[in-house]
Amino acid sequence: MEFTISTKRGQDLIDITSYIKNAVRESGVKEGLAVVFVPHTTAGVTINENGDPDVVTDIIEGLNKAFPVRGNYLHFEGNSHAHIKASFMGSSVNLIIENASPRLGTWQSVYLCEFDGPRTRRVLVKILDG
Amino acid sequence: MEFTISTKRGQDLIDITSYIKNAVRESGVKEGLAVVFVPHTTAGVTINENGDPDVVTDIIEGLNKAFPVRGNYLHFEGNSHAHIKASFMGSSVNLIIENASPRLGTWQSVYLCEFDGPRTRRVLVKILDG
Amino acid sequence: MEFTISTKRGQDLIDITSYIKNAVRESGVKEGLAVVFVPHTTAGVTINENGDPDVVTDIIEGLNKAFPVRGNYLHFEGNSHAHIKASFMGSSVNLIIENASPRLGTWQSVYLCEFDGPRTRRVLVKILDG
Repeated sequence: MEFTISTKRGQDLIDITSYIKNAVRESGVKEGLAVVFVPHTTAGVTINENGDPDVVTDIIEGLNKAFPVRGNYLHFEGNSHAHIKASFMGSSVNLIIENASPRLGTWQSVYLCEFDGPRTRRVLVKILDG
Repeated sequence: MEFTISTKRGQDLIDITSYIKNAVRESGVKEGLAVVFVPHTTAGVTINENGDPDVVTDIIEGLNKAFPVRGNYLHFEGNSHAHIKASFMGSSVNLIIENASPRLGTWQSVYLCEFDGPRTRRVLVKILDG
Repeated sequence: MEFTISTKRGQDLIDITSYIKNAVRESGVKEGLAVVFVPHTTAGVTINENGDPDVVTDIIEGLNKAFPVRGNYLHFEGNSHAHIKASFMGSSVNLIIENASPRLGTWQSVYLCEFDGPRTRRVLVKILDG
């Protein structure tokens, strides 16, 4: 299955855990694997803390320090920082399905990582039974 | 299946390959996929060299330079560097199972990445037959 | 299945998408998951833009700034930067298979990441039906 998210900012992490949980529930799969895949090159997906929204801000700012938005980049579109961050965060995450639900730690949520927004982004979810 | 690891330091990479090999063996699966998942937001999992322990030190120090332990972070717990590192390393790794064993390169081991220890960490292993 | 790639430079990203597509086609699997795994500790695999080759240059240079080739590293082989980059990019990517083909975004390609070349690198592809 797939869904779309309209991001609101240039850079943001958007909690998409509820979409993944719905996808798992609708699949009817009790035990298996859920693979979340983002088919974009300036957006990614990661798992991190949902308890304090400052963590999201700190992650984005930490990334900006290591990979500045403006730098000596060649790519004509001017969004190379976003390509680097997307490659580092990765295009997919794996979630283990137990008892018909993705198994996440207490503080873990799945985040769509927008690095070159605002845009409409697609997210694919593949459920494997097993 | 799952197991726990008690980490000893604030930041460390702990070789957990033998646990994964045991999990694959006990599953009886000959060909398939092993997904290793860490249900924490200040710890991750990666694959890297097991030949020279200096590589682990260099990885941790390299990460500290790019994402300093102390910085202008907002998160009240003061461990934002650990959240960033965990997101970058990732929550899971995939291992291909061949002949009832995870297929790893000569120098590859699977490491639990502790970035906010010492703590007791859980590691989940899901084995898919196929 | 597996294949080998002879890299030409010290650091490079080599588009291996056609190999993955061939592997999926030859497997005969219509719906499922393709896991691409690199059994090396100074090479990795990522997904990024194939439209403008400057993106590859910018990614490598961005990584070099965050994790310099020469630094205060302990590891005697002098390639610690390559181990760090490989751990960050990761050893594997997941691709969802739909209609007998890996589902990729318009601009996405799969890249072998060489950080300590030139060398001959192996790439493993595992196809799961489901």
